[in-house]
Amino acid sequence: MIRVLLAEDQGMVRGALAALLGLEEDLTVVGEAGTGAEAVAVAVRTRPDVALLDIEMPDGDGLTAAAGIRAAVPGCRVVILTTFGRPGYLRRAMEAGASAFLIKDGPAAELAAAVRRVVAGERVIDPALAAAALSAGPNPLSPRERDVLAAGADGSTIADIAARLHLSEGTVRNYLSSAISKVGVRNRIEAARAAERQGWL
Amino acid sequence: MIRVLLAEDQGMVRGALAALLGLEEDLTVVGEAGTGAEAVAVAVRTRPDVALLDIEMPDGDGLTAAAGIRAAVPGCRVVILTTFGRPGYLRRAMEAGASAFLIKDGPAAELAAAVRRVVAGERVIDPALAAAALSAGPNPLSPRERDVLAAGADGSTIADIAARLHLSEGTVRNYLSSAISKVGVRNRIEAARAAERQGWL
Repeated sequence: MIRVLLAEDQGMVRGALAALLGLEEDLTVVGEAGTGAEAVAVAVRTRPDVALLDIEMPDGDGLTAAAGIRAAVPGCRVVILTTFGRPGYLRRAMEAGASAFLIKDGPAAELAAAVRRVVAGERVIDPALAAAALSAGPNPLSPRERDVLAAGADGSTIADIAARLHLSEGTVRNYLSSAISKVGVRNRIEAARAAERQGWL
Repeated sequence: MIRVLLAEDQGMVRGALAALLGLEEDLTVVGEAGTGAEAVAVAVRTRPDVALLDIEMPDGDGLTAAAGIRAAVPGCRVVILTTFGRPGYLRRAMEAGASAFLIKDGPAAELAAAVRRVVAGERVIDPALAAAALSAGPNPLSPRERDVLAAGADGSTIADIAARLHLSEGTVRNYLSSAISKVGVRNRIEAARAAERQGWL
């Protein structure tokens, strides 16, 4: 029996995925979690063979949880499951030691198949997404540029961003300007949207 | 047996929800769909007792599909399932004739329970969300204001929006200005975000 940990913050989707995996005779769900921090704690307690982690979770996302589980539970494989096929997410998932990266848009049968394949030592990644991640290259934004872009994504003024991040307005302007230039767009709203789509924020 | 139609665009989530409903002895999934238009077509063909519709689908969202199914299949109850508990969505779902409105954050057991309750003629709505929808009132934005706000949400310039919607720049400015004033915020990016959160776009 392959022992699976399932981490997903939407209760109804988590219950549905557990039902789906429960239909497979060689898989058993040994633990469930609704946040990234809880996923690490449950993994330490239940020692699963495979941790199936949603990226978009509160209190430690799935990428952070992946690194934590890889460190705390030797031999546990990580399968990342996400709504968004963002190249930056895939890159960060691989860096965190994930063995598979699945998009929720895929067919349901892929899930159990991917769990079996990572236990057999394989990697499971969509080839088109892998190509996009390699061609997009690593995240060009510095941590400060990411903070400033994210803080301004809702249309906040320069003064608002400066106050919230405890920076001078001139410094905020400089970070925004370098971020816009690196992303290759015309303004900071476009830069925030483009960076989000790439999985860089 | 209660005959259920299941419409959800994410294949893995759809398969998982079907597995979850399949565990119930009194429910049977008679059709599946991945878009709003497909949901209406499958409903006409399979005549379900209950249509379970995700809102966020391509090619006709779940709210549009709900109205279509209510018109085409008399007696079919509609359960709306969504990631976002937006007051405007709930209001539009009720206007489209939905009997239940569920958030994917809820426990998995709620899904089958809601299906049984709507077949018995009940309505199933989260009380806190219902109160929020009533206090927020109806959507204050005109269709043109919604178009212009949505077109500018990515940081597009006035000239871009005008070109895309075949309007003059002065007209775009007027619509943006009235929309910002109605939403009660400071700029058009904030207005687009706030309107999206309310389910008004």
